Amino acid sequence: MKTYLDCIPCFLNQIIRTGRLLHMDESVIMDMLAEFGATIRDFPMEDPPPRSAVALYDMIAARAGTDDPFRHMKEESTRHALTFYPELREKVAGSENPISTAIKFAIAGNIIDFGVAAHFDLKTELEKVLDSSSYGIWEEDALVSRIMDAEWILYLGDNTGETVFDRLLIETMGKPVTYAVRSGPIINDATMEDAVAAGIDKVCTRIVSSGCRAPGTILELCSDEFQDMFCSAPLIISKGQGNYETLSGTPAPVFFLLKAKCSVVSGHLGVNIGDIVLTSRS
Amino acid sequence: MKTYLDCIPCFLNQIIRTGRLLHMDESVIMDMLAEFGATIRDFPMEDPPPRSAVALYDMIAARAGTDDPFRHMKEESTRHALTFYPELREKVAGSENPISTAIKFAIAGNIIDFGVAAHFDLKTELEKVLDSSSYGIWEEDALVSRIMDAEWILYLGDNTGETVFDRLLIETMGKPVTYAVRSGPIINDATMEDAVAAGIDKVCTRIVSSGCRAPGTILELCSDEFQDMFCSAPLIISKGQGNYETLSGTPAPVFFLLKAKCSVVSGHLGVNIGDIVLTSRS
Repeated sequence: MKTYLDCIPCFLNQIIRTGRLLHMDESVIMDMLAEFGATIRDFPMEDPPPRSAVALYDMIAARAGTDDPFRHMKEESTRHALTFYPELREKVAGSENPISTAIKFAIAGNIIDFGVAAHFDLKTELEKVLDSSSYGIWEEDALVSRIMDAEWILYLGDNTGETVFDRLLIETMGKPVTYAVRSGPIINDATMEDAVAAGIDKVCTRIVSSGCRAPGTILELCSDEFQDMFCSAPLIISKGQGNYETLSGTPAPVFFLLKAKCSVVSGHLGVNIGDIVLTSRS
Repeated sequence: MKTYLDCIPCFLNQIIRTGRLLHMDESVIMDMLAEFGATIRDFPMEDPPPRSAVALYDMIAARAGTDDPFRHMKEESTRHALTFYPELREKVAGSENPISTAIKFAIAGNIIDFGVAAHFDLKTELEKVLDSSSYGIWEEDALVSRIMDAEWILYLGDNTGETVFDRLLIETMGKPVTYAVRSGPIINDATMEDAVAAGIDKVCTRIVSSGCRAPGTILELCSDEFQDMFCSAPLIISKGQGNYETLSGTPAPVFFLLKAKCSVVSGHLGVNIGDIVLTSRS
């Protein structure tokens, strides 16, 4: 997906939101807005937005003086999400259709996204997802049938904390899964360390780095090993907007599982903002 | 009210929204985003946002090749609003508390604002305002008591079309009213011509230009005549966010009547976005 005009002010809002999350001075945030503002003329509008986000979050990290400014918040997200895990696991096991329930919890976890909102209520989201009316596109039967047939699944992770709910879905599917994470810290996206902290290693065949540090999966920036894996995977489950923005249009057998959080992605998918989506249409 | 960091991306969103309303090419809109982006470093954050909006809308007007790019849309807004007028006038006259009803219709008209949203549903807004639960601050009794006592009232207009509902409130109050408009076209704010098209001249002692073209009332940029009027008015009714942003903090006897349309103004007032507000606190 290309960058839309609307993404430009959204990038500025991301600077403000994350700058405040990191307790930066207003003057420092203003400096970053000016630095970004001066680059608008040459903005690579043909790239998917997550590709441009790398420079943006590198700027924020440089101002924060650390390459992983959200580390403590990510750790807290995982801890918080893990408190729900035992109860949700029981709910899944006791439900009429465990895979369906686990898919829904996995998408509820997608609200943990510092790039989009500073505050969210995970408990409310988990409660309402089971009888939500905000299913934009929901090809659950098709996904479940593909899961049954697949020899193994490539699962593209998204945010830290959300990983805990991915874990629940992965163990419920009962198939060999390779779980892919970003190659380095970017916003609150899950890295290898974050995935392990969520217990993903306990339920997956392996965790791999995609080789790409963008908050998405830009295939040409991924490692050769990951690209081979992507091309040979019989089924790919892709979590979140960033992976959708960078993989939309792919001919690979991808099911996108995401909450449409902005007007650009919701418009691209033809759903409402806030809708949850499960689709192989890209 | 000063400019907040959040106003910067909002200005960019205004460029996109109004550029699209005017059917401008994406490349022209992108050019304007870049032009604005390059000015962020020296942005006058101590000024109220409407002061900076003048340069922004001048840029848009220059690209549109006319000093009043929203003229046709303004005319349409007035025409559309006038279709509601006879029915609303009857509703006001037949209601238990005509002034209260007229105040509520006057605030419902405040949704006609191209600076904030490209689309709105006036009919729905008018229907729901009478039993809305979204009153943030609502000092109606205090205002009505001041209206009863006032020898005359200075009424600060806001958007074109909204003027029709101002007309209804003004005739319901039954007091001598001077209605102030912007000195020239800016976004869809009402000018002298727009006020007359709405029939404001039929119910007011006079219509005056504030002498200021900003989408608000920046006293130091207003004419001497208007400033004298402002200082001597026993009661001022101020419509909309722009007037609030520029007059907040004034010691004058102003009642602000507005819908809080953005996080900055709603935060400043301590209400929720979307709330309607009637207050003399500034």
